[in-house]
Amino acid sequence: MLSRNQVRHINSLKLKKQREKHLQFIAEGSKLVLDLLESDYRICEIFATGDWIESHASGFPSGNLILTTVTDDELSRVTALTTPGQVLAIVSIPEAKINPGSLAGTLTLVLDDIRDPGNLGTIIRIADWFGINAVICSETTVDLYNPKVVQATMGSIARVPVYYTNLADFLSGLPSSLNIYGSFLEGGNIYDMALESHGIIIIGNESKGISDDVAKFVTNRVHIPSFSTGKGSAPHAESLNASVAAAVLCSEFKRRTIQIL
Amino acid sequence: MLSRNQVRHINSLKLKKQREKHLQFIAEGSKLVLDLLESDYRICEIFATGDWIESHASGFPSGNLILTTVTDDELSRVTALTTPGQVLAIVSIPEAKINPGSLAGTLTLVLDDIRDPGNLGTIIRIADWFGINAVICSETTVDLYNPKVVQATMGSIARVPVYYTNLADFLSGLPSSLNIYGSFLEGGNIYDMALESHGIIIIGNESKGISDDVAKFVTNRVHIPSFSTGKGSAPHAESLNASVAAAVLCSEFKRRTIQIL
Repeated sequence: MLSRNQVRHINSLKLKKQREKHLQFIAEGSKLVLDLLESDYRICEIFATGDWIESHASGFPSGNLILTTVTDDELSRVTALTTPGQVLAIVSIPEAKINPGSLAGTLTLVLDDIRDPGNLGTIIRIADWFGINAVICSETTVDLYNPKVVQATMGSIARVPVYYTNLADFLSGLPSSLNIYGSFLEGGNIYDMALESHGIIIIGNESKGISDDVAKFVTNRVHIPSFSTGKGSAPHAESLNASVAAAVLCSEFKRRTIQIL
Repeated sequence: MLSRNQVRHINSLKLKKQREKHLQFIAEGSKLVLDLLESDYRICEIFATGDWIESHASGFPSGNLILTTVTDDELSRVTALTTPGQVLAIVSIPEAKINPGSLAGTLTLVLDDIRDPGNLGTIIRIADWFGINAVICSETTVDLYNPKVVQATMGSIARVPVYYTNLADFLSGLPSSLNIYGSFLEGGNIYDMALESHGIIIIGNESKGISDDVAKFVTNRVHIPSFSTGKGSAPHAESLNASVAAAVLCSEFKRRTIQIL
């Protein structure tokens, strides 16, 4: 059963200010909670239906995990989803500190002011799929622990380390041997230029692209060309969605690491 | 000024049933409305602020376009957006009939039961960017004229023809010379197999993938491999988002048409 205080506490975690105060966030849905249970995240408390607990509790790690049986109706009073799942977890927000040395020899995504929760979650899912070791966000990027972001990662939040930092400070501290790729209209055709198997790929804001403060650190300007044959004053889309651009870039970088076709 | 009847009519067009009854949909925001004005869509009526009309009206096509000056406050009473723009248009839904013959020599996206409005809009934007000549949707796919879909196309709805049809009937009527590509877990590595410059690419439902009824028409099973180095029982994301998969497939098909790298 959910007490009135628990309902209030869970609902409060939908706000960034309260998440920062309590250092907790909420995760919902069976796949997401199971993925988090297998990760380095520490689950504080799980609220689940009797059915869900019966099916899954045998696989839980031992330790001080609080497990509370609740009804569908109770879950619907605290869910951040349109259709509540069978389980909701309160999870500790870990301390996250980037070790720039760990980025050598890997491909890292840097997000400059991504504002849409769906985009951030989708980019983390893309990073998971394409084996990107870390996602580094500007301090203006939407909060990782926003329930919409957590949901859109589809469990990938459990596997991809995400950090927030001042990007100019971060980029200026990188070894000069690391290529920093950024997408610009006047950049080189991504399909037709040399790409290293490691380095930094910067994804810019949904409407403004990469900011001037960050652009000056870019060593390799790239561009995903349009294949539209449209004519006239608006021949094709002005741009790709930020997460779509991230996917095309990751795909092209990673493809090069396996073979030449 | 907006009459009470106009407010009621515009708001009614947020519902599919009413759109089908009136054969009209709404489009909001300056870029989207300007893109539609340059397209084959017929705009019935434009509601815009005085500022917007002053900046743009000189470029309007002649003809029986009704233009009404409204206030920001009036727009906020009819908008489907969180932040209303300066302009809202009522647009005619055209009659749309596929000509299968027109698909020869082109690359076509087929969507099998895409439910998320953001995904459909994003896929249309991807189609626009990558020069896909048509998007063909199952009858169960979310409605193109849903305001969230229209918005997510970012204007690409004005340039990409989208059709709804029974996919089994459509696919069974195609010439056998056309390859039909579909993404399956056991498919061939997309980066490492022959891809034609024309054919059909099928994108499946967000959670269920390509349905059995449609899968039987697939001639070439493909797969976007994961590059994750994760280990354990949940080593990486189970799948890519539907629009992300569409982007990676379009990118890979189109890349092959320009060069071998």
